Amino acid sequence: MINNITAPIKPHAPARTHAPVVPARTTHHKSTPPPFKRSFSEAPIAVPQFIPTSPAQDSIRIIPLGGVEEVGKNMTLVEFRDEIVIIDAGFQFPGEEAPGVDYIIPDTTYLQKKKHMIKGIFITHGHLDHTGGIPYVMDKLGNPPIYAPLLASVMIKKRQDEFPHLAPLKLHVVEKDSKLNVGKHLSVRFFNVTHTIPDAMGVMVETPYGNLIFTGDLKIDHDNGVPLEHEMKTFEEVGKSNNLFLAGDSTNVERAGWSFSERAVHENLKKIITETKGRLIMGTFASLLERVIFVINTAEEIGKKVLLRGRSMKNNVAIAIEVGMLKVKPTTLITPEEAESLPPGKVIILATGAQGEELAALMRMATKKDKHLKMTKSDTVLLSSSIIPGNERSVQKLKDNIARQGAKIIHYRIADVHSSGHANHDEMLWIHKMIKAKFFMPLHGYHYMHRLHAEIAKEAGLTDENIVIPDNGMIIDIIEGGKKIVVQKDMAPAGVVMVDGLGTGDVKDVVIRDRQLLAEDGMFVIIGTIDIKTGKLRQSPDIISRGFIYLKESQDLLRQTRFLIKKTIEDTTAEMHPVNFDYVKNHLRDKIGKFLFQKTKKRPMILPVLIEV
Amino acid sequence: MINNITAPIKPHAPARTHAPVVPARTTHHKSTPPPFKRSFSEAPIAVPQFIPTSPAQDSIRIIPLGGVEEVGKNMTLVEFRDEIVIIDAGFQFPGEEAPGVDYIIPDTTYLQKKKHMIKGIFITHGHLDHTGGIPYVMDKLGNPPIYAPLLASVMIKKRQDEFPHLAPLKLHVVEKDSKLNVGKHLSVRFFNVTHTIPDAMGVMVETPYGNLIFTGDLKIDHDNGVPLEHEMKTFEEVGKSNNLFLAGDSTNVERAGWSFSERAVHENLKKIITETKGRLIMGTFASLLERVIFVINTAEEIGKKVLLRGRSMKNNVAIAIEVGMLKVKPTTLITPEEAESLPPGKVIILATGAQGEELAALMRMATKKDKHLKMTKSDTVLLSSSIIPGNERSVQKLKDNIARQGAKIIHYRIADVHSSGHANHDEMLWIHKMIKAKFFMPLHGYHYMHRLHAEIAKEAGLTDENIVIPDNGMIIDIIEGGKKIVVQKDMAPAGVVMVDGLGTGDVKDVVIRDRQLLAEDGMFVIIGTIDIKTGKLRQSPDIISRGFIYLKESQDLLRQTRFLIKKTIEDTTAEMHPVNFDYVKNHLRDKIGKFLFQKTKKRPMILPVLIEV
Repeated sequence: MINNITAPIKPHAPARTHAPVVPARTTHHKSTPPPFKRSFSEAPIAVPQFIPTSPAQDSIRIIPLGGVEEVGKNMTLVEFRDEIVIIDAGFQFPGEEAPGVDYIIPDTTYLQKKKHMIKGIFITHGHLDHTGGIPYVMDKLGNPPIYAPLLASVMIKKRQDEFPHLAPLKLHVVEKDSKLNVGKHLSVRFFNVTHTIPDAMGVMVETPYGNLIFTGDLKIDHDNGVPLEHEMKTFEEVGKSNNLFLAGDSTNVERAGWSFSERAVHENLKKIITETKGRLIMGTFASLLERVIFVINTAEEIGKKVLLRGRSMKNNVAIAIEVGMLKVKPTTLITPEEAESLPPGKVIILATGAQGEELAALMRMATKKDKHLKMTKSDTVLLSSSIIPGNERSVQKLKDNIARQGAKIIHYRIADVHSSGHANHDEMLWIHKMIKAKFFMPLHGYHYMHRLHAEIAKEAGLTDENIVIPDNGMIIDIIEGGKKIVVQKDMAPAGVVMVDGLGTGDVKDVVIRDRQLLAEDGMFVIIGTIDIKTGKLRQSPDIISRGFIYLKESQDLLRQTRFLIKKTIEDTTAEMHPVNFDYVKNHLRDKIGKFLFQKTKKRPMILPVLIEV
Repeated sequence: MINNITAPIKPHAPARTHAPVVPARTTHHKSTPPPFKRSFSEAPIAVPQFIPTSPAQDSIRIIPLGGVEEVGKNMTLVEFRDEIVIIDAGFQFPGEEAPGVDYIIPDTTYLQKKKHMIKGIFITHGHLDHTGGIPYVMDKLGNPPIYAPLLASVMIKKRQDEFPHLAPLKLHVVEKDSKLNVGKHLSVRFFNVTHTIPDAMGVMVETPYGNLIFTGDLKIDHDNGVPLEHEMKTFEEVGKSNNLFLAGDSTNVERAGWSFSERAVHENLKKIITETKGRLIMGTFASLLERVIFVINTAEEIGKKVLLRGRSMKNNVAIAIEVGMLKVKPTTLITPEEAESLPPGKVIILATGAQGEELAALMRMATKKDKHLKMTKSDTVLLSSSIIPGNERSVQKLKDNIARQGAKIIHYRIADVHSSGHANHDEMLWIHKMIKAKFFMPLHGYHYMHRLHAEIAKEAGLTDENIVIPDNGMIIDIIEGGKKIVVQKDMAPAGVVMVDGLGTGDVKDVVIRDRQLLAEDGMFVIIGTIDIKTGKLRQSPDIISRGFIYLKESQDLLRQTRFLIKKTIEDTTAEMHPVNFDYVKNHLRDKIGKFLFQKTKKRPMILPVLIEV
């Protein structure tokens, strides 16, 4: 091995690598982007890291930990003396501002410090923006009991089965109007509300000074602005009590008048289902379970068959059957093979993916990726959902792909085949007038919606002093035995807690910011082996780059960059004894960053690794 | 230096680094994501890389190179014998699917092969989706003459000034109705159309077999569905000719009836401008220059002053003044200092940023980042634009921030303060009936819109054989001297050409895919120094990770990973003489990838670097 190209290194003299194992963040750009920030509007008050003191003996404390300044991750707590009740525990899907992150959940720090006081979590309905946080927060909260309507409780249970390492939930099914004496001071009652999923409820927290009403997500079942009898009955009943405080759904208060009723949607769907001669492919959210149940019932009634397509659709229908909310003959629900053998006019396909999700049932059918079901020009495709903000492009792509198959498309902009599950302006006004609460806080929605909702409260007779427009983490105390509502100066921690793979809550801003930088301009790792004695490079530096530019076709730039790396390192180390590796690296990062920007107008993340030999 | 920790290496034996300089892509995940694909709907025909042959002597060829199956990057060519004319040369902003990319421009490969035949580029109006590609394509096309209306030509010129290294444009200003004999066979005429920018025109390409009409972007100026006289006159004139072919704007054909007219928007704006007692802050697109001009004129008329805020707003107003389309007293346009000293009721701020852009004028005012101008609760903020799909969240954030300042918000969903510049269904139908072309191709819009537009053509009397629904790159020949319209089997190259920093057209799918991967799960570089003789690591391996998880708080995982790296390398090299470094690296990537996924459910891009010592 005389001519071995590698020289021996004495065992007592290991090569040293000057790459910090987890290098501290250093500014490698002139213009470092601002620190990662949620796309919240700018809340006026900073969030402190300490936990504020407890409320006074005669104060009731309300803190929205999520679901205000945003749509999603709903969670609000009520604290009185040594008792806490929690309403909902939802999650939220992150936007572009948190790439790679699975979910965002409420910050429960405040509750964790007081977990011995938690009497229970009260779930208004089975949608994930009200229940999705459960697997991620229960352990931190000491696994308190959960009280939920039947349907929601089964949905929560099924989801929890996907987390076998977690402790079993203490899940209690509640009936409407049943009063739960959960503590010495607080009790809770549920009341029926109308939403897009059956078994949705509002929550009434009874305190010695009056009731706190949480509407949950709701709309009013009405006929031309006249609420139906069951709504009248419910809200008259709720309105009879001494209602101290109302927290109401703000999602749709920007819309004038009354919402388009789900019953009217049903009528239109029934007409389409009945009149469609060919196969009817209907895309909707599996979470719009009222509508899904209606379609299956209608199909059975007129002798058509239903094929369910998409995992959440099958799951939710199975749950609806399990809890007895859907009663259907076994022959009504068919397999893909049966669908193929039936006359097209007998077949309804109820599918997920109306938001244009690439891998969901509808898109697969529209792009011939579904083995069994291919769209044809005799199909009618009914998109019975609105477009969630941010999904416009994918829905457009879905429509384009369906159009390419020649199928007829009916969607909510050309026919009334969808209605939202949240009350419009006049509906909320009616609710305010029925409930007649002394104090009001808008819930569920963005800040601008909260402002508009506050105007509704004023239309209903409240004054500014009795209204609080909340931010997440805002500590709202009803003081002096129900006399006044005040906002504390301190806030409860209400940061962005992310679920990122198996990690929960430990995703740091710096990680997200790095993902954003990497997504824009990629990265550029420089590996140099430096002779510690001479300060010279032992060989031409190596470069690993991804997501920057296509270096294979940029050999000239690569050559120039290598030359500049070598020159920069050797010029820097020339008069330097001993070599300050951190200095060399920072200087290198700066120099190469500027050079690459000048040449490409891109700013890849530059990571120098210097190895002593 | 006896105790120097670094051992000497003989000069003839340089250390060898086993990191490929630009490593070939290898699959480092089990589930590699699908190759990067635009969010086009799935076109049925593959794009070949060869250039199809020329049309027959009696054929007129039309190829949309951009602007169909999409909104943006409009460019269509007409080829007859040895002459080519091009209509528009736009660009497009990429969506989430191309992170870091600045623009997408049309693929001009077909034209490059025939650049000697190009007689000119004919620009319909000054919007960037019709002109933005110019700086990136002119050189490739041999810098042919550009013919444009006055306003567009000045806008093109100003933009070109930002590219001083490019050859000067051969820019010709055209008047409506002036006939340009650009070749032996082809001549071109422009005709006035109504859009949201003044001086918008349609293009008529005259051929021996009849005229080809390109509407450009347009709507019809009307009163309750009755076109105004100037529209009647224009389209009667256009309709008199022998019109062989129509390519029409499809952007809004999904909308029923007639569009809301800009004149009605103006009336509403005038009312708001007149009646607003406090300061009026109006956010709109600078490109809606008709409206911008109207607001400035109205302000002057009623004695209010206008402060322009935002670079594009100032630029476009300056251009409008330069070309004489806006005549305004110098005292009407004021500085921020003057705005501060005037009574608020006298001040109108005309600002960019109505889409919620983080750094634009409106957001800066709403978040108190503008030094001079801060929103107050006595301000009225008028958002006079619709929301571009994809911007819903940022517009929500803008509204929330404005609401936090207490300002009153008026937006297009609560008042008619915006109208689009594209014709609705009934307007397009009217245009079809006026132009009476034999053949039709929908232009400007997504595939689904094209299908709907084809239905309009049929309402106007055309049959399926006379209609072509195009994809980008589709070669459409009108054959046999105008007898029939056919689609060739071959397609012109119509790939996605990206402008990414200074690089144009050389952004490879692999770079974009890497950006997407890096954005999701970050990266993980492993640096190991291997003793070539023993196959052992000389030291604990080094790790550089970004955008994956926060390793500072994952010391345990890091320790385990280092251990596994060492074990994997040394187990692999143990019986291996000589060491196959590629094998070791692939094995390491696989092993560590699986390990990290199991521990974190994240799949960072793993890049092993092995250094021989």
